[in-house]
Amino acid sequence: MLKGSLLVAQGGGPTAVINQSLVGVITAAMEYDCVDKIYGSFHGVEGIKNGRLAYISEVSRDNLEKVARTTGSGMLSTRVRPDAEYCKAMFENMKKLNIRYFFYIGGNDSSDTVRIVSEYAASEGYDLRAVHIPKTIDNDLVLSDHTPGYGSAARYVAYAFMGADFDNRSLAGVYIGVIMGRHAGFLTGAAALGRADKDAGPHLLYFPEKAFDLEKFSKDVKECYDRYGRCVIAVSEGIVDADGTPIVTKMMAESEKDQHGNVQLSGTGALGDFLANYIKQTLGISRVRADTLGYMQRSFPAAVSNVDAEEARRSGAFGVKMACEEQVSGKDKNAFSVGIRRVSDEPYQVEFFTVNISDIAAKTRLMPDEYINKEANNVTEEFLKYATPLLGEGFEKGTALVVPEISL
Amino acid sequence: MLKGSLLVAQGGGPTAVINQSLVGVITAAMEYDCVDKIYGSFHGVEGIKNGRLAYISEVSRDNLEKVARTTGSGMLSTRVRPDAEYCKAMFENMKKLNIRYFFYIGGNDSSDTVRIVSEYAASEGYDLRAVHIPKTIDNDLVLSDHTPGYGSAARYVAYAFMGADFDNRSLAGVYIGVIMGRHAGFLTGAAALGRADKDAGPHLLYFPEKAFDLEKFSKDVKECYDRYGRCVIAVSEGIVDADGTPIVTKMMAESEKDQHGNVQLSGTGALGDFLANYIKQTLGISRVRADTLGYMQRSFPAAVSNVDAEEARRSGAFGVKMACEEQVSGKDKNAFSVGIRRVSDEPYQVEFFTVNISDIAAKTRLMPDEYINKEANNVTEEFLKYATPLLGEGFEKGTALVVPEISL
Repeated sequence: MLKGSLLVAQGGGPTAVINQSLVGVITAAMEYDCVDKIYGSFHGVEGIKNGRLAYISEVSRDNLEKVARTTGSGMLSTRVRPDAEYCKAMFENMKKLNIRYFFYIGGNDSSDTVRIVSEYAASEGYDLRAVHIPKTIDNDLVLSDHTPGYGSAARYVAYAFMGADFDNRSLAGVYIGVIMGRHAGFLTGAAALGRADKDAGPHLLYFPEKAFDLEKFSKDVKECYDRYGRCVIAVSEGIVDADGTPIVTKMMAESEKDQHGNVQLSGTGALGDFLANYIKQTLGISRVRADTLGYMQRSFPAAVSNVDAEEARRSGAFGVKMACEEQVSGKDKNAFSVGIRRVSDEPYQVEFFTVNISDIAAKTRLMPDEYINKEANNVTEEFLKYATPLLGEGFEKGTALVVPEISL
Repeated sequence: MLKGSLLVAQGGGPTAVINQSLVGVITAAMEYDCVDKIYGSFHGVEGIKNGRLAYISEVSRDNLEKVARTTGSGMLSTRVRPDAEYCKAMFENMKKLNIRYFFYIGGNDSSDTVRIVSEYAASEGYDLRAVHIPKTIDNDLVLSDHTPGYGSAARYVAYAFMGADFDNRSLAGVYIGVIMGRHAGFLTGAAALGRADKDAGPHLLYFPEKAFDLEKFSKDVKECYDRYGRCVIAVSEGIVDADGTPIVTKMMAESEKDQHGNVQLSGTGALGDFLANYIKQTLGISRVRADTLGYMQRSFPAAVSNVDAEEARRSGAFGVKMACEEQVSGKDKNAFSVGIRRVSDEPYQVEFFTVNISDIAAKTRLMPDEYINKEANNVTEEFLKYATPLLGEGFEKGTALVVPEISL
């Protein structure tokens, strides 16, 4: 059995339940003899390189449980992608503390960081278990039924559209809500999970998986508006044209990119405003409003799915168990990720499994075709069945007034 | 005692609890003999003019209770301001149904509609009790301690900034959140109610009551960023320059106005994007993000304050009681609004009272000076004390990891 200290850190955009995974790793690590001391690194790999670490073994259980219920990344985060030189500096510090277990909680970019760190360790002949604990609101990690972080973001988006839909009934017009999701439309699809009745919006949904055509969009909106006297639309921030160019980049003079080469899509209202103006101009509808749902999707504290929170916690604990009990065999034991498999729909039940890191690193899962309708402007029943259990307990839908109408 | 039918309708932007007031009016009206039948009008005064009404006496109690818990305006809404000709058409229909009690749930524009309708009735010699039931997320109605709708919007905003602040700690930078509020900064102030600890944002807040200066703004942000390595900012959509011109109108080619003369401020990300770009350019900070909080502020179903919901319900019921028991004297009895007075801070307790309609109609209450700090970029302790009880029960703050830091 490999003995040594464990270091845990978080990478990429936070989620509402990423701290559940952090606490899941920590509390499980406290149970295993193979783990000597537990350290955390501030701002992901940055803290390891810069020697800014936290001695986590001494954190109180009460504080840990409160942090678990807090959104954001408790150990802070980074978007840095380490290269060989960066790894060299990291390993100098890791060796000082005899770190033998490296846990990194993040999305597909972070899984790639785990691969890089693991390969560097191998090249140095340094025995290290590098474990990726998944999180992403985008739900775009491959091989898993879904990813921790998605359920809570989906619950927020479902509630947001339920509220926006009742608002739009009150003051009729066109409402466009722009939703996070660079390549995958799962979170955009979640807008449909709060539909309260057959007239409820979102009436139209647009996903990054399908080419977005402005003229078709305008035609769809007109049909919807003619039918309902209003139209609620969910649009992914990542929609692209037929050439695969993001619509948002067409409108921005300068695009900002991170080290993973990702263009900035969030934190700007440009796409929503552009689409709203386009509808105003082409259809002559006066009341057209656009919201960009923004960072609340991944950080709102009051829309956490209990199913999501529990799975995030268990993912972290499962990773520690697999590493410490050496249940992962072959080359995979040095670097693996945690996957979720759905065992049953009713009752909803999952189990965890390990994934070889090279099978997940930097890969992106898209919405399968059976979740998007043929017109490419709505989700299917299959999607609703898939995603609804992830919202967790106590998700209550609104109710319209059922009242006899009289005409004078 | 005046006997006849009661008509209830809703005007202006919906809130998360406006249906509590609707159901409060309806269920109270069912108890009084002076009320013959209960009608609702679809889309506020529009339904009265067009003869599109609902026979509410027959609605099931179960449906009413579910509608009460649903955001948006159950009877739908309008922004129409009736003139004499409009009133003439309305009264033709109201006479057909012998409407003697007119209840209108809305903000300051709606209180003005109640005044207009009441004055028209008087000019016609038609005996009518016109009652305004207050709602507004802006909290800008005069003479009341606060207004139904504000507490739930404040809870949403407080949670949103709490989450955004933990997100901003994770990935440091400048975060700007733009908050609803045309003239009053109460809702912007609510962003401070979720501060989890002494380092927590929002670190800077800007209100429509105080002239906004771009250079001062940039200086404030620099100071904050130098101190915390990050900066979370709450900005009211209604901020104006020294001349009183809204900052947002400077950036929009065409401004949209409603019949009350209000410029469209919401449903666009223009102000947030403008401020973010300004900070990027003047301070050279690379990670600057702006969210415009949007319609969720008034419609999110999962951040309702139980205090707010209960007061909204009681406001509606109180209006009916005052009208039917003829407890309002003099000229005021024909047209009044309902006010809320705070009787005690600990325990938090309120009582309701009537307000002469001409004392409230179309008037706007602003944040008092003692709620804004001298620098005009933060709220005071007095504001926190004032607003916190309105968030309701179960408002839980997040917790940062308390951990010994080690440097290598």
